[in-house]
Amino acid sequence: MAEAGLASWRDGDARHAILEFVRSVTTPGPGFVPEAERIATFDNDGTLWCEKPLYVQADFVLRTWKAMVESDPTLAERQPYKALVENDMAWLADIVSHVPDVVRGVSDAFAGLTPHAFEAQVLDFFAEARHPTLDVPYTSVSYAPMRELLRLLEANAFRVFICSAGGRDFVRAVCEQVYGLRREQVIGSSAPVELRDGQLVRAPGIEQPLDDGAGKPVHIWARTGRQPLLAAGNADGDIEMLASARFALVVRHDDDLREFAYTEGARRLLDEAATRGWTVASMRDDFATVFDGSA
Amino acid sequence: MAEAGLASWRDGDARHAILEFVRSVTTPGPGFVPEAERIATFDNDGTLWCEKPLYVQADFVLRTWKAMVESDPTLAERQPYKALVENDMAWLADIVSHVPDVVRGVSDAFAGLTPHAFEAQVLDFFAEARHPTLDVPYTSVSYAPMRELLRLLEANAFRVFICSAGGRDFVRAVCEQVYGLRREQVIGSSAPVELRDGQLVRAPGIEQPLDDGAGKPVHIWARTGRQPLLAAGNADGDIEMLASARFALVVRHDDDLREFAYTEGARRLLDEAATRGWTVASMRDDFATVFDGSA
Repeated sequence: MAEAGLASWRDGDARHAILEFVRSVTTPGPGFVPEAERIATFDNDGTLWCEKPLYVQADFVLRTWKAMVESDPTLAERQPYKALVENDMAWLADIVSHVPDVVRGVSDAFAGLTPHAFEAQVLDFFAEARHPTLDVPYTSVSYAPMRELLRLLEANAFRVFICSAGGRDFVRAVCEQVYGLRREQVIGSSAPVELRDGQLVRAPGIEQPLDDGAGKPVHIWARTGRQPLLAAGNADGDIEMLASARFALVVRHDDDLREFAYTEGARRLLDEAATRGWTVASMRDDFATVFDGSA
Repeated sequence: MAEAGLASWRDGDARHAILEFVRSVTTPGPGFVPEAERIATFDNDGTLWCEKPLYVQADFVLRTWKAMVESDPTLAERQPYKALVENDMAWLADIVSHVPDVVRGVSDAFAGLTPHAFEAQVLDFFAEARHPTLDVPYTSVSYAPMRELLRLLEANAFRVFICSAGGRDFVRAVCEQVYGLRREQVIGSSAPVELRDGQLVRAPGIEQPLDDGAGKPVHIWARTGRQPLLAAGNADGDIEMLASARFALVVRHDDDLREFAYTEGARRLLDEAATRGWTVASMRDDFATVFDGSA
């Protein structure tokens, strides 16, 4: 195995289990796995970077909608802009009940843009926005122990993919800066892209299936022709991906001093992890550092 | 630039143009391109391996249909099985007019299979079938100069992708053996895949857009977040992909002694190549060897 690694993890069961698994699949013997089959997939929000108090991408979309309403106040008469203008947090927090409005709002904002124009807007956001409680740029809210795990896997001939329920093209804009991963290593939900007069443009709507829940193993198969050898997640939408992997790692958010402590959206996952014996990394106990500001 | 390479190419304009392009993008100076942006995409049928007298995958599908009719003769009453039983080459050759029948035939044959069961059928085919005129296994009909070009690009930090109008999962079954490429490096048309009871299975139908024509840049964007720096093709369905690349390479089939000489399906492409000054590799003049039996 290349690089003992994981210095930013505290010595404990999670670190031991990861290192032992990597050792076993890279060492000749019964557990050995050929390099071609070493695929690792990581959920993004809450697994590789902070997702509280709101998803990074939600902040980006809300800021975009706000600017749209400022230049066209008539938008405030309908959702999702109405909720934004009225600061209706209950409506905004319950996105699941308002998917058609949210999808239309995202299409209003970004359909018709070239991917490059969209990327420029995303980069402007990252250059300007700061995390509301940590008060650092969003490019600095990734978890140092998880980035270190990406490097350990790469050093052992794994090909690493981000597998995000959030927007593929949003993450791609900063994946090299934040994670040292290339754009082709990002799998995620996405707007359809079309070729018009020789030019790629974002089309309205969202491609199905979303890269969430049962959609994650489907996206991973489409992109890699494999099921993951190792997968990591932190929310209920990661269960199917984790169940499809040989080694499943769950990030548990239990550190209200250095990050956030919460179980909402993860209760089914934590039950599954206990039942199936998945490896659980406690941010409080297993992460020696959480953020390191290196990004 | 790593590796002068291309020893199986004859010295000439095509070889010079390729080597000069690779040198320019890898050498500090005005043409330099960062490694992250070095994406190369290759059509498969007719660009990386022989597509005459019929597509390799067509041979696979026809054999599968034949076996299905043998075990259920009532199938012969309807298309596409009827054409097969009656040896109706006119019907079979005009697939474009019979897309619904062909898609239904493919779904009849493979929908409901796990990807692993499908792969096993493909591997059985490759173990048994031989090219009808070259009389070698289909795994031996890839073009040695093009495989050498894949290696040259990899040695210069390009990430190489196959971008096939044909079936992604068909090519993936042999991409490592034939091309030394991993499954995640294959982009192509595909059946939908679904998760049923925790198990991936092929669903009926074909995902849109096909990885052909305007669909190629769309697939490449979805998979890589890039447009290709270098692309290679041989047929009209490759025009949009080649137009999206900085360097476009066209394989011209003009060697009826060592392979096949034909322009059908490539006339628009050859016109575009002349108009746009794309690099054209003549199989007769530029390939020192065509096949080498190494696969």
